[in-house]
Parts: sequence; structure tokens; C-alpha cells
Amino acid sequence: MGPSVTFDDVRAAEARIRGLVRRTPVLTSSVLDERAGARLFFKCENFQKAGVFKARGAHNAVFALSEDEAAAGVLTHSSGNHGAALSLAARRRGIPAHIVVPEGASAAKVEAIRRYGGQVTFSPATLPGREAAAARIRGETGARLVHPYDDPLIIAGQGTAALELLAEVPGLEAVVAPVGGGGLLSGTALAAKGLDPRLRVFGAEPAGADDAARSLAAGRFIPQENPRTIADGLRTSLGQLTFPILRERLEGVLTVPEDEIVEAMRLAWQVMKIVIEPSSAVPLAALLGSGSPLRGRRVGVILSGGNVDLDRLPWIKA
Amino acid sequence: MGPSVTFDDVRAAEARIRGLVRRTPVLTSSVLDERAGARLFFKCENFQKAGVFKARGAHNAVFALSEDEAAAGVLTHSSGNHGAALSLAARRRGIPAHIVVPEGASAAKVEAIRRYGGQVTFSPATLPGREAAAARIRGETGARLVHPYDDPLIIAGQGTAALELLAEVPGLEAVVAPVGGGGLLSGTALAAKGLDPRLRVFGAEPAGADDAARSLAAGRFIPQENPRTIADGLRTSLGQLTFPILRERLEGVLTVPEDEIVEAMRLAWQVMKIVIEPSSAVPLAALLGSGSPLRGRRVGVILSGGNVDLDRLPWIKA
Repeated sequence: MGPSVTFDDVRAAEARIRGLVRRTPVLTSSVLDERAGARLFFKCENFQKAGVFKARGAHNAVFALSEDEAAAGVLTHSSGNHGAALSLAARRRGIPAHIVVPEGASAAKVEAIRRYGGQVTFSPATLPGREAAAARIRGETGARLVHPYDDPLIIAGQGTAALELLAEVPGLEAVVAPVGGGGLLSGTALAAKGLDPRLRVFGAEPAGADDAARSLAAGRFIPQENPRTIADGLRTSLGQLTFPILRERLEGVLTVPEDEIVEAMRLAWQVMKIVIEPSSAVPLAALLGSGSPLRGRRVGVILSGGNVDLDRLPWIKA
Repeated sequence: MGPSVTFDDVRAAEARIRGLVRRTPVLTSSVLDERAGARLFFKCENFQKAGVFKARGAHNAVFALSEDEAAAGVLTHSSGNHGAALSLAARRRGIPAHIVVPEGASAAKVEAIRRYGGQVTFSPATLPGREAAAARIRGETGARLVHPYDDPLIIAGQGTAALELLAEVPGLEAVVAPVGGGGLLSGTALAAKGLDPRLRVFGAEPAGADDAARSLAAGRFIPQENPRTIADGLRTSLGQLTFPILRERLEGVLTVPEDEIVEAMRLAWQVMKIVIEPSSAVPLAALLGSGSPLRGRRVGVILSGGNVDLDRLPWIKA
């Protein structure tokens, strides 16, 4: 048995990161309510520090370390939002963050990591190449590896967004969050079921990277091969920790086609006047779809982040 | 003497429109604070109903009418945000809104007006042509003309954004709002000076449409000819009502070049994850400029609106 995560861990995370991350606002939109045939409450993690919910887990992981553990720094091989968020959390604790970035990663991502003080090491783009680079840095520095989603402290930290949402909005009947590796959704499910077992928790996933839907339907872990989706935060497979958490607590996973993701993203920008990234638009797309099981309900929606390349928007053809 | 507007009118407007318009959130950004060398508090009227502060004045004007006056409906010849906001307010009171739109206005603007239930009448694009069309409708219907900015009820309504901001954020030293016709800035100045005469109020204006700066410097009204700016909400000249209000209460008008408006707009999208229109970016650009007189200060900023054509962004070349 690996380590487990509980509702108490989410509560402990909330106390630990309070004041370090933002208590993000909850926004509503009468236009989107009408289109979804439901009452939607959007937890705006796009306004979170570093522009993404991942600041929650990263701060929880970094600030849970003892002084001795912390001194050696932290390490990850996620080039995306997690790498930037971990860099920010480490800088605020005054410890080094080593981020392994695959060659060919976008300049914007590398720049974000460096802006938050992360130390970038380039590696081959393959998983073995990245793991070898991480192992080498770990040997040299003793830094603690912080996995982007399959880590109890990360999962507990990500669950604090749902905890805040449910404390602020009374009477919610369901919560929907996007699912890639499952860190955010696992934390959300722990928080929601811990507060009220009757709350229904749904994942939302691109049809082109639907390993969570398939894994949960099959009752066994099925890895995602060749993910095809614009929602770059959701291309990963579920983890060893996140899969069992979700299997026990999830009502279901809603899948959406690519064109509906882009449409929902553009609609949120247009109607709500907020910048959200494609991964964030996936739950909204599911709720706008004709097959939504949540019509007529009061639904909390986690808008996961807003880190977008503003020079290349998916609805503008170059 | 025409009609005057007072602080009490702004307070009355606040009571009248409460529950009809949104109490918009105030957001902050450590990145923008650092760049501006000041502590900035953004009143997000881009989240306002119809996407713009103009919903405030429009609801105040429409709901201040007696039953008899209201029955004949309202009328304006603003094709932009005011036309849409007035349509929305009228629909909520259950009365007709007649909007005179110049031929050649963008399809998006016409669609917004119709979506909110406004009745569109096309007219020649010249001012005499628009006024003739408005006069004809007025004769036929008896509808009350609601000027987009030079109307006491409109000015008082727009001032409620600053009233909310100042109630929520203690210790502000200055407030900055964009200035076109001057309705928003006049209401802001009435609210701020009414609450605390020591508060400094600044306008912000594109260098390519700087009639307010020139008028206030000269001490007499100088109309704007051939405005050249992307900030389409700020191309108009000050009005007969707004000029004297501003002359008495304003600390100054900050002007900004076009490239800095686009840069500030993009920066707000990127860092704050909010969609704001070019007019809203003008105060931010002024505060980011090296000549800002507000370095080191706690400053309230009215972000006026977020109605942007998402298919044509100024930093993406077609």
C-alpha cells in the first residue's frame, strides 16, 4: 500500500497555505446559466497565484517540509504549470527549485519557471530522459521530488479550492473539475465527499484524452496513449494514488469533443470577461452539452487556470 | 444654467440600482503593483451586466422615470455600449428602448443591442443624420432621450462604481478613471470628493483624443476633432454637464500613447486573466508609464468594460 490521503489532509492543507495563496473569487453568469439550464458557480483558479490551481498543491508540499528537508530544495520534471508553481512556492520559502524541462518546451513555459526563480535543467523529451535528469539532480542535491499530481501533499493542496467554494456557496448539489493526472479532481472529491457525502462529483475530460473515463468504466487503470487535445493540462494518465481515490468517490466522467472545448473557452472569455485556458473550459463544455446530467442543478465548477499564449488563440486562424 | 448633479444624486443612484446591477469585485495584482510602483485596486466593471459600467447609469436613468414617463420608453443614438446597456435596463423595466444606430456600425454592436431587446433604427452616420432620426422617433413615440453621458441620471449612476470601490478598500489616496465624454469620470469625481475631499481624482485619456486634457488646461471647452485611438469608448468630447464638474474636481488628466494602451491591455489579460477593452487599459497604461504622478500611492482604478471583438485582437496581426 502506498500513502493514502484523507479529508483531514485537505483541511490541514487549507490551514497551511492560507495567506500564501489567493482565496479566489466565485463568479456567476446569467448567460451561461441559461445556456446550461443550470445554476453555475465558477471557482476562478485562473486568478490564483501563477495563474493556476497548482499553486495550492505546490505551496502545501513546500511548506509541509521540515527545515532540514526544505534546505535541500525541491525538484520536479513537469515543464508546465506545476513547474512554475513549485518555483514560486520554493522562492517564497527561500529554498531552491530544480525544474527538469524537456528540450523543445515552449519559451513561454521556460520563461515562467525562471521568472519565479526556478532553476531550469534541459533533458531529452522522453520520459526516461526526464527521469534520468531528475535522478541525477536528486543525487547531487538531495532535493525532494514533488510529483505534479501523484503526491499526497499535492492532492490535499489542490482540494482546498473545492473546500473554499463549498464554504462560500451554500446548497451546491454537484461539483465538476477537469481531470488529467487527477490531482485536482482527487482533492476536489476528497473535499466534497468529506463535507457532504451526498454531493455528486464529476470529472470532465477531452474525448481525445479520455483515459479517466475508460479506466473508471473498466475498473482498472488504462494509460493514455497518444492524447489528442488542445487541453494541454489534461493529456496525462491517472496516477497510482489518484485512480483509487477517484474510483471510490466519483459519480462519473463527462467527455467532450475538441470543438466544444474551444467554443466553451471563447464563450467564457466573451461572456464572463475572464481568460481561461483550454483545460479550464472542459467542465464548462460538458455542462453546456446536450448530454449534461446536471441540468436543473446547482453546480460548482473549478476553472483550473488561465495560462494561455495570447498571441495564438485557437479560434483565430493564423 | 442646466441641471446640476451632486454627491446625493450618486447616493440616490446607488440605492435605486442596488440589486439591478452587479456589485463588481475588486481585484489586485502583485505583478502590476511592482511594475507601477504603487498599490493598485481594480474595480472590475468589465464584469458588470452588459460587460460595462454603462449598465449603472442606464439602470439609474430608466428606473428613475415615473410610470407615465416610462410607458413611452427610452431612446438614444449611441450605437456602442450605452445603447446595449439602455436596452437591457429598459427590458428589465418592461418598456421599449429605441436605439438609433449609424449605418456601417459593426454587426457585433447591433447584435448586442438586439440581444438585450433594443429596437434598432438605422440612420446616416453623420451627427445631424442621427439626431434627425432620434427626433423623428421621439415625435412618434414620446420616448425619453437618454444621452450617453451628458445627463444627470447617467452621471450619478456611473459614480456608483467609485462609491462601491471606496467603501470596500480603505485608505485609498487617489482614483483614476478613463475619460471620453466624461460621464464615468464625473460620477467618479462626485463620489470620491463627496466621500473625502482630500482624495485626488485623475482622468486618463489617449494622446490621440486628448480633448479633456486640453480643455481643462485651457479652462474652456475644446471639442475633439478627428480622434485617433483604438480606445473607441474615449473618442467623444466632454459634455456641457461633465466639463464643469471635472473642472472643479479633477487633479489632472494623464495622457498615454497608443502603443502603451495596447501593451497595458495585453498585460492585464496576461497577468490578471481578465478581458478588458482598450478604453479600460488607458488608466493602467498611465499608471505604468514613467511619468505617473501616483508612484508610492494606494490607487483605485476603474476598469470600465470588457466588450472586445475576440476575433480581432490589437496585438495579433491578421
